[in-house]
Amino acid sequence: MKYGIVAFPSKKLQDLANAYRKRYDPHYALITPHMTVKGVFEANDQEIEEVAKEVRNVTKKYKPFELNVSKVSTFAPITNTLYFKVDPSNELLALHEGLNSGNLKDDLDYTFVPHITIAQKLSSGEHDDIVGQLKMVGVNHSEIVDRLHLLYQLEDGSWTVYETFHLGEVN
Amino acid sequence: MKYGIVAFPSKKLQDLANAYRKRYDPHYALITPHMTVKGVFEANDQEIEEVAKEVRNVTKKYKPFELNVSKVSTFAPITNTLYFKVDPSNELLALHEGLNSGNLKDDLDYTFVPHITIAQKLSSGEHDDIVGQLKMVGVNHSEIVDRLHLLYQLEDGSWTVYETFHLGEVN
Repeated sequence: MKYGIVAFPSKKLQDLANAYRKRYDPHYALITPHMTVKGVFEANDQEIEEVAKEVRNVTKKYKPFELNVSKVSTFAPITNTLYFKVDPSNELLALHEGLNSGNLKDDLDYTFVPHITIAQKLSSGEHDDIVGQLKMVGVNHSEIVDRLHLLYQLEDGSWTVYETFHLGEVN
Repeated sequence: MKYGIVAFPSKKLQDLANAYRKRYDPHYALITPHMTVKGVFEANDQEIEEVAKEVRNVTKKYKPFELNVSKVSTFAPITNTLYFKVDPSNELLALHEGLNSGNLKDDLDYTFVPHITIAQKLSSGEHDDIVGQLKMVGVNHSEIVDRLHLLYQLEDGSWTVYETFHLGEVN
């Protein structure tokens, strides 16, 4: 089964992201707006219990952090994906490192660019049409994230929450 | 903001429900398959913290329960909704009562019929066309539910998880 760990931002920021996603993100219906902190990994029913314990061990060591988005960026030309860029604060980078090292080690072959996707799988034409406008409108929002969610994926591609982890708390 | 409390069944049962929901449930994209244990209620950001505490107090008192689905039923002629009927075990009824009484009291004007919706908002013609077949195919599945999730609704109607509660545990 496929799992991942994300932060769901506040309703306000999710609504804002969805205003774009509804039009520009084919994954719109599969998951609500989120920032991934541990990318997709495989685990079976037994393994995930161990993973969840380990995630709990990690998340209790980190405090709630400030999620600050201040601009719209693009991953083009790698992929035609637009996103709210999340400032890579030291707290967030440390949390990401904690969730992707030790017993939770992943073979990450890319740099962690914290973000909330608002458009993806665009054609180059679509991308080029909207990137300027979305960057100009921009985004400016800050909030405290105090919890992460471990999700699993259903056969149709949608994601269900398995568990919530409060940062800085034992549960 | 609108909140609700549900149990998400296992991936296996969710995939089965989604096979029908994809065709027959316009809410398919708004939430993954679930059994509601506390219907929609309103709360603001402060109130929900109190509610979450109270839910934690309640859920720690109840043990994981067996979720048993053994037939497809319909709410027609009240509404043209088809569902996997969940056996109303004493454990489940007690948990539902706990989440809808005391400080969590709701003015429930209906009887709790535990279920997982697989089709809704059908025309009478559609309903009558498929009800016989779905009942005949039926469903037969049993599993243990050990957690509930508190959700909130975004402006587009989709639901995001706010918090997980493990039955029988403090967190």
